[in-house]
Amino acid sequence: MDRGKVISKLVKLAEEMLEDIKLGESPKIRMPQRSLGNIIYNEKENILELGDKKSTRSFLNVAHSKKFMQTLLIAAKCKELLARNKTASIRELYYQLKHTIPGTKENTFEDQSESDPLIVDLETTLGVLREQLHLKADDKGTLIGNIKIEDSGDIIDCSKLGRSGLSIPSIVEHYKFVEVKADYVLVIETGAMFDRLVEEKYHIKNNCIMIATKGQAARGCRRLVHRLYYELNLPVIMFTDGDPWGYYIYSVMKAGSMSLAHESKRLGTPGMKFVGMTMTDIKTYGLEKVTEKLKDVDRKRIRELLQYPWFQKKEWLHELKLMDKMGVRIEQQALASKSLEFVAEEYLPEKIENNQLLP
Amino acid sequence: MDRGKVISKLVKLAEEMLEDIKLGESPKIRMPQRSLGNIIYNEKENILELGDKKSTRSFLNVAHSKKFMQTLLIAAKCKELLARNKTASIRELYYQLKHTIPGTKENTFEDQSESDPLIVDLETTLGVLREQLHLKADDKGTLIGNIKIEDSGDIIDCSKLGRSGLSIPSIVEHYKFVEVKADYVLVIETGAMFDRLVEEKYHIKNNCIMIATKGQAARGCRRLVHRLYYELNLPVIMFTDGDPWGYYIYSVMKAGSMSLAHESKRLGTPGMKFVGMTMTDIKTYGLEKVTEKLKDVDRKRIRELLQYPWFQKKEWLHELKLMDKMGVRIEQQALASKSLEFVAEEYLPEKIENNQLLP
Repeated sequence: MDRGKVISKLVKLAEEMLEDIKLGESPKIRMPQRSLGNIIYNEKENILELGDKKSTRSFLNVAHSKKFMQTLLIAAKCKELLARNKTASIRELYYQLKHTIPGTKENTFEDQSESDPLIVDLETTLGVLREQLHLKADDKGTLIGNIKIEDSGDIIDCSKLGRSGLSIPSIVEHYKFVEVKADYVLVIETGAMFDRLVEEKYHIKNNCIMIATKGQAARGCRRLVHRLYYELNLPVIMFTDGDPWGYYIYSVMKAGSMSLAHESKRLGTPGMKFVGMTMTDIKTYGLEKVTEKLKDVDRKRIRELLQYPWFQKKEWLHELKLMDKMGVRIEQQALASKSLEFVAEEYLPEKIENNQLLP
Repeated sequence: MDRGKVISKLVKLAEEMLEDIKLGESPKIRMPQRSLGNIIYNEKENILELGDKKSTRSFLNVAHSKKFMQTLLIAAKCKELLARNKTASIRELYYQLKHTIPGTKENTFEDQSESDPLIVDLETTLGVLREQLHLKADDKGTLIGNIKIEDSGDIIDCSKLGRSGLSIPSIVEHYKFVEVKADYVLVIETGAMFDRLVEEKYHIKNNCIMIATKGQAARGCRRLVHRLYYELNLPVIMFTDGDPWGYYIYSVMKAGSMSLAHESKRLGTPGMKFVGMTMTDIKTYGLEKVTEKLKDVDRKRIRELLQYPWFQKKEWLHELKLMDKMGVRIEQQALASKSLEFVAEEYLPEKIENNQLLP
């Protein structure tokens, strides 16, 4: 979606309010509800999404009017950003809009916690991503491998970045994929495991693109994986720690999150698969000595995952119940107990070649 | 220092123990004390360092013998890493060494918290950085600007990386600076401010290298800044939030930290300067409306910084006392309240040109 279309959507929103005013009615915004009751797991597409329930924010409702005005301030600022082809962080947006209303002691915003949810409201109302409103979140993540990306006029050959790799920015909408020779994408949870695989030249020997999310993936990273999958038809495989936190990172990359269910379709990659660490790996590879005991918070998290509709697949139920039964978790780096090279020369290539992947 | 030299140091350590054994004595290691009482602020060089106090770890001392053996296991593994020209994360090292001693139920290590401090012991004993022992910490940070770096055979032109930038790895010892046309290095605390400056093309318009530390700087990032300063004679200027946390990030980059005082000489950059945010900026630029109230933890931290010997400079005492008096902090991104471009077009260039920098 180009800038012009997003601007049109913003203008249309304002014109509808103008209509309300001309009709002598209170201007209002209709937006999808984001409460848990309106978050639906679409089993067929394997994705979390918002349902059809709507709510209305109205200017002439005392309970709404402050939020209504704040929403319009944000919409107006986004239109300005788009028109000037500028982007802003959500914190900068807050600072840009924060001021005292002339003649009063009232501030437009007191805290960023007031503006952040209204950005999501605007996204869902207009059906656009915040990046398309030229707003950005923090960036995180590194990419390396056989792909040439055009970024702002520069052609970046990501196979020629030594052992460093490309820093994935918060917005990747402007990336153009110029030339891609890689066979698949391997997404890795920890920076340390990414480093290990870079040192072992895994991406070269296995002709893949490697991406480190460095914990829960940032939006730029999720969007980039989504684009690699849909635009280039590259298979995507994820590799996390063997614990409920790693499994949840995978599920967010794949199916989306509850808090941002409206964005799953543009950030999620339902077709991705999971290579490990699994609980089954522990026995298969004799890793019993390098597991760690589950803590209470881990067990609580396992019980939560077992409730989520998108974990209701026999493979995942098996792994989660096995984890609870064994009472242990295992880290990616625990594979180093075999040898430093083991993960790159045996574990990953064998599991991927034999398609020992979880859905 | 090349690999051969580090290996020699490890071999020499072992040979000394062999001598002890031949003399019928308990093998032992003499190492600098790392307690607070042996951490000295070298005012002349503006750097934190370890004093001369030593302690001895002895095999035939029941209180020492487990740690003694663990230290030797680590030393032996580091020698192997060096000989094979491999690196390992400190977590991988732990997993590589963890095993049950044959014939017993005793594990070599139970937890990484046992191996981490022994790595530091080995560093201080041998006078080498952990990176020189081929051990690495997590990586973090991004670089962009007019410098060509050779990394593992690839020449990376960091001025041709679009709006993405280079991901700074955990080890930068192998970086070779091929061609540098930048005039100075700007080190930035937050990823969001780095993004802003990239969008404004600050690094191009002002011909500088920009580095985002993304919070407290990782070791790779600190070492890279150190190398840029000492090997290329590039001035280094830091830009953080105006709060005790940002000021401390600056002081660690500059003078080192108490917990890693032995490494300040190789990680610190005592010659670097500080551009902002200062408390004085608030009045100068009329930013009163976008400050935030200090919390109790902020005030506590200010009192701590006021005690540190390396903050005993009139400019810093002034800023810290002013912060306490005004009762507010200010973020880098608060400059967006003026305009998005303000930081890049007025604030930074004017302060740097007029040398309005803190020591």
